[in-house]
Amino acid sequence: MGYDVMSISRSLSLADVEAAAEQIRAHIHRTPLTYSRTLSELTERRVFLKCENLQKTGSFKARGALNCVASLSDDERKSGVITVSAGNHAQGIAYAARVFNATAVIVMPASAAPGKVAATRDYGAECILHGDAHAAFEKMHELKERRGLTLIHPFDDPMLIAGHGTMGLEIHDDLPHFDAVVCGIGGGSLISGIATASRALTPETRIYGVEPEGAATMSAALEAGKPVRLEHLNTIADGLAPPSVGALNLEITKRHVDTVVTVSDDEIRAAMSLLLERTKLLVEPAGAAALAALLEDRLPIERGETVVVVLSGGNVDLDGLCLLLKGPGSQ
Amino acid sequence: MGYDVMSISRSLSLADVEAAAEQIRAHIHRTPLTYSRTLSELTERRVFLKCENLQKTGSFKARGALNCVASLSDDERKSGVITVSAGNHAQGIAYAARVFNATAVIVMPASAAPGKVAATRDYGAECILHGDAHAAFEKMHELKERRGLTLIHPFDDPMLIAGHGTMGLEIHDDLPHFDAVVCGIGGGSLISGIATASRALTPETRIYGVEPEGAATMSAALEAGKPVRLEHLNTIADGLAPPSVGALNLEITKRHVDTVVTVSDDEIRAAMSLLLERTKLLVEPAGAAALAALLEDRLPIERGETVVVVLSGGNVDLDGLCLLLKGPGSQ
Repeated sequence: MGYDVMSISRSLSLADVEAAAEQIRAHIHRTPLTYSRTLSELTERRVFLKCENLQKTGSFKARGALNCVASLSDDERKSGVITVSAGNHAQGIAYAARVFNATAVIVMPASAAPGKVAATRDYGAECILHGDAHAAFEKMHELKERRGLTLIHPFDDPMLIAGHGTMGLEIHDDLPHFDAVVCGIGGGSLISGIATASRALTPETRIYGVEPEGAATMSAALEAGKPVRLEHLNTIADGLAPPSVGALNLEITKRHVDTVVTVSDDEIRAAMSLLLERTKLLVEPAGAAALAALLEDRLPIERGETVVVVLSGGNVDLDGLCLLLKGPGSQ
Repeated sequence: MGYDVMSISRSLSLADVEAAAEQIRAHIHRTPLTYSRTLSELTERRVFLKCENLQKTGSFKARGALNCVASLSDDERKSGVITVSAGNHAQGIAYAARVFNATAVIVMPASAAPGKVAATRDYGAECILHGDAHAAFEKMHELKERRGLTLIHPFDDPMLIAGHGTMGLEIHDDLPHFDAVVCGIGGGSLISGIATASRALTPETRIYGVEPEGAATMSAALEAGKPVRLEHLNTIADGLAPPSVGALNLEITKRHVDTVVTVSDDEIRAAMSLLLERTKLLVEPAGAAALAALLEDRLPIERGETVVVVLSGGNVDLDGLCLLLKGPGSQ
């Protein structure tokens, strides 16, 4: 990544998150933090939902993407940025590029969902569909060199993390005291951002991360003491399934996150269905993982405590939704 | 109904709606009025959504039900209320009865969705499943007499209308100026409530109603000059398909509503899908009809004007959702 992970993980601070908030405020939604009586009764905790599925571009990724693109020089924006993503980060960068008048090239694997490709193109980005995830990554590096583009990493970048952390500021602003916050972990930038803000504002608030059983990259990294590349990823939560976590995010997680737990695809599916049926909110599988862990009582949160559950995104193709809800065993 | 329709339709006023707001405030959600950039760009109007799918019980019906039950004497509440409904009104009355400590008996047709029966029972109401819609209605009258219960009509009642009108107060409070408001018409109590509030607050705001082609009861009533009982109802929007509109609601509509238009089931389905995919909100077919009319450009609203679209409810069984979204012609 070209920077000192340990040093950055220590120096990234609330001031960086506050600066990000200033940068991106005009271009994001201040998403609602909603008390859910239904979920509170079900779990016997006081449950608040941070609705990032209602964020611009349909996920929290817009926050970090905006902060990254905003931090570039005029020349860098004019020459263009590049990234690789099959999903929400692609839309985030495409949107941020439109906002800050930059050129964006997004390499997506050929298997990317047509709806996500279309949404990314709608923001004006150049989308290149190429091979599988590995081939797409190589293509991205090739194009970066050949065209002189600036890389924006999908999860392991301090400006990105600071951008995601702005969600933490909003939560604390709406709800000055809560016992715990729970969010999903893919590459780890979301929990790193929230932890950076939350630890500084209320050090006693516990921070929990949730991974799919089939893509438990942070658990593997915590055990190994370094990012581990998982060869076999198998989960419906595609938003939580990069092959490994980021080195920077691992350091921040080691320092600030209390526990990381896993949930199964069936548990994610049940949480998604419950959210849709009872709160009328569409979340994608990645966005339902945090709630799944709470529903399964997998987190050390006492009855009666107050917990904020991050619904990180809502980008689901409706064609795929019905299959997702029914699960593999159904007709 | 035991009252003078013409006289009540004239005397029902903003003061009644304001009194209702006072009565029910502690027991309803003040639902969000959300600006939608996506829908605004698509329709070339400034579109705000009034999210009554996020209301207690999943639809606006809780408002009127609460106001009706609140207005009863202690004796009436103790003896119990009765109504007939296959859906949202059942849940509204069951919830209101729980809030105000009344006994509630709800007669539902035997074909009522298991999810709606379960939700109604969860609020503590006695649910009696009986025959088809006509048989259920007769059963309700029989039980009312035999048990000495107080009838709360599902749509043609001034207290109910005043309760629904509280939504109009909230809209005007959040958005002091708008050009038009659009909502679905079933029995007509929703549009009557909104019209009562809106005409008094900003007489220049236009009020539009939308019916399914297969249940155009208000259009038929306006043409005939009196409520017309339609023998054949055929629409996916079960929430907009009572056999006729209410006499009181017809009078209020004649006085205050600018235009009533119809939409097809396919148009409703497209609006439902768009809301789910782009705004991440689950609405039932009845709740999507108003948006369908706007998307189809069937309403006299100029480009650039500001319009409030009421999403009246979100109660859809997930099992049925996929069939609904795909439509009858799909595999």
